[in-house]
Amino acid sequence: MIANQFYTPEFHGEYELVSIGRLDLEEGGSIPDCHLAITTWGEINEARDNVILITTWYSGTHQIFRDAYVGEGHALDPSKYFIVCINQIGNGLSTSPHNADGPNADLAMSKFPKVRIGDDVVAQERLLREHFGIEKLALVVGGSMGAQQTYEWAIRFPDKVERAAPIAGTAQNTPHDFLYTESLNEQIWSDPGWNGGEYKSNEDVEDGLKRHAHIWGIMGFSTEFWKQEVWRALEFESKEAFLEGFLEPYFTVMDPNDLLCMAWKWQRGDVTRHASGDLEAALGRITAKTFVMPISEDMFFPPRDCKAEQELVPNSELRVVDDVLGHLGLFGVAPTYIPQIDEHLGELLATKV
Amino acid sequence: MIANQFYTPEFHGEYELVSIGRLDLEEGGSIPDCHLAITTWGEINEARDNVILITTWYSGTHQIFRDAYVGEGHALDPSKYFIVCINQIGNGLSTSPHNADGPNADLAMSKFPKVRIGDDVVAQERLLREHFGIEKLALVVGGSMGAQQTYEWAIRFPDKVERAAPIAGTAQNTPHDFLYTESLNEQIWSDPGWNGGEYKSNEDVEDGLKRHAHIWGIMGFSTEFWKQEVWRALEFESKEAFLEGFLEPYFTVMDPNDLLCMAWKWQRGDVTRHASGDLEAALGRITAKTFVMPISEDMFFPPRDCKAEQELVPNSELRVVDDVLGHLGLFGVAPTYIPQIDEHLGELLATKV
Repeated sequence: MIANQFYTPEFHGEYELVSIGRLDLEEGGSIPDCHLAITTWGEINEARDNVILITTWYSGTHQIFRDAYVGEGHALDPSKYFIVCINQIGNGLSTSPHNADGPNADLAMSKFPKVRIGDDVVAQERLLREHFGIEKLALVVGGSMGAQQTYEWAIRFPDKVERAAPIAGTAQNTPHDFLYTESLNEQIWSDPGWNGGEYKSNEDVEDGLKRHAHIWGIMGFSTEFWKQEVWRALEFESKEAFLEGFLEPYFTVMDPNDLLCMAWKWQRGDVTRHASGDLEAALGRITAKTFVMPISEDMFFPPRDCKAEQELVPNSELRVVDDVLGHLGLFGVAPTYIPQIDEHLGELLATKV
Repeated sequence: MIANQFYTPEFHGEYELVSIGRLDLEEGGSIPDCHLAITTWGEINEARDNVILITTWYSGTHQIFRDAYVGEGHALDPSKYFIVCINQIGNGLSTSPHNADGPNADLAMSKFPKVRIGDDVVAQERLLREHFGIEKLALVVGGSMGAQQTYEWAIRFPDKVERAAPIAGTAQNTPHDFLYTESLNEQIWSDPGWNGGEYKSNEDVEDGLKRHAHIWGIMGFSTEFWKQEVWRALEFESKEAFLEGFLEPYFTVMDPNDLLCMAWKWQRGDVTRHASGDLEAALGRITAKTFVMPISEDMFFPPRDCKAEQELVPNSELRVVDDVLGHLGLFGVAPTYIPQIDEHLGELLATKV
């Protein structure tokens, strides 16, 4: 375990750490005392049928949802819904390589086991059931790796998921996406400070994390984002200043092993594990009303890939979100982004199931 | 100067080294004895009006044109045209960081000066004029950085260029492209073996060159290339085997300083230097009949960017080349690629000017 001030309530606002006990993992081994960091908004109603689950993306936490997605006036409205955001395993707030201690001390740093999207979803289901008594979700929604978890939920627990909204992500990770993520990983692995995962501080891996941020710059945003100099809206004076003032500090505060843990999961997200490799069969199990919501300019979860999956989901619609930011449109920076999310999610939530 | 067996006739087939003497550079300084490596096919006619110039791309040489683009039955037909391929400065065959010796010895390795696309074009024009007595080009054609040189030719020497075919490249490099190239560079710079450019052998930088190859893998090909497993047509058994057996060896034999020299040029390709930053004015100077030929799935010279420029070229047409390979379709691997090139170039060459 190493100290990292980024993964604290001072930086992330209040959250609760809930233990779900031992979590046995698909790849073998287990997390002896798995903690999930959660935040909730709103109140559960008597019928217990107003629950929304939000899942998190690579590098993401509940924070972005609190800041951009959830609130009165939004589709994710705490005055109507009981909204639970569960931070994924390895994201630095839930049990993760950098914070493994106590009963999990044997899993610290480079010794952290491989975790799969399915492990997260099993852990989340247990938490919702045991901690809150929740058996039904009005909506599961998440972006990127959160979309992977959303699909996994809808296929693994079809009776519990009434509606699903995977944003900017796929049910079966693509080979291009695998290679993209591998190049991100390589930036960390190639930094001598990484030291096989046994660094003393994330600062030891600062160079690698900066290169990692730069690759996000070319794939996470779109060619048009850079051409139109959209970063000027964020009050930067040059693209270099934007990299240095936005993308680099976003990633350099993070823990390298935590990022690698999430990346391993992301690379292997694949719902066909439930159907012997048959994507049509796997997606055919979804009973939730589903809006598949790619972002128009996404360079690594392009609408084409999302559409191909949507066509295999029985009760689904394709809702493309227009955003010149590309994948990182997920940050909600463009003033036109959240209104589209609200429109689609609002319509989805209003659909009788 | 360091020895590198890749940059020899054994690997590249015969070529001629032509000295054009001292080349003064736009960024200051000069190359005391600039050599350009050239290959020619066919014979110049009496009217001296059947000359085609081929320019080269990042990492490329005349070899790919000999193997895939030039020959009887192709538009670039040596039985009709005198075809000259001039290797760009820094590509390892022409004067480059790794081979600077004799009068150029002071420019070796990390001391090599910054070279611009305009320097190449000035050098090429001098070579064609002084060495061959060529004053008119029936066609200038090149892909990627070769397209940058093609545009530069058409704007700098409008009276000499009758037809122009920039393939998969732009007249003004985009900011996204700049950042993409910077991430390629960073893979080299971050390898401790690079040693500030003073390595003993390209093998010292093998790790960096492999990571560099991997980033080509995610941006140089398309998401569809990987999804459709097009590499199977090249008889590889997995995407990893394709990376290891194709992309890695392609780049690891190359010289890191040479790649960096070309990358610096690529990043700053910009014809608006001739028109005080005004792209419309610069492209408006082109008198050549021009076919702008982006590749449909290109992720960093997308058709959208090429089309925006084409619309500013007076006597031009947009001819999109369909290829699921993306930018590296330029290699001519897809059986449908070269026929499209031949069709467009054939039509362009048949156009009266």
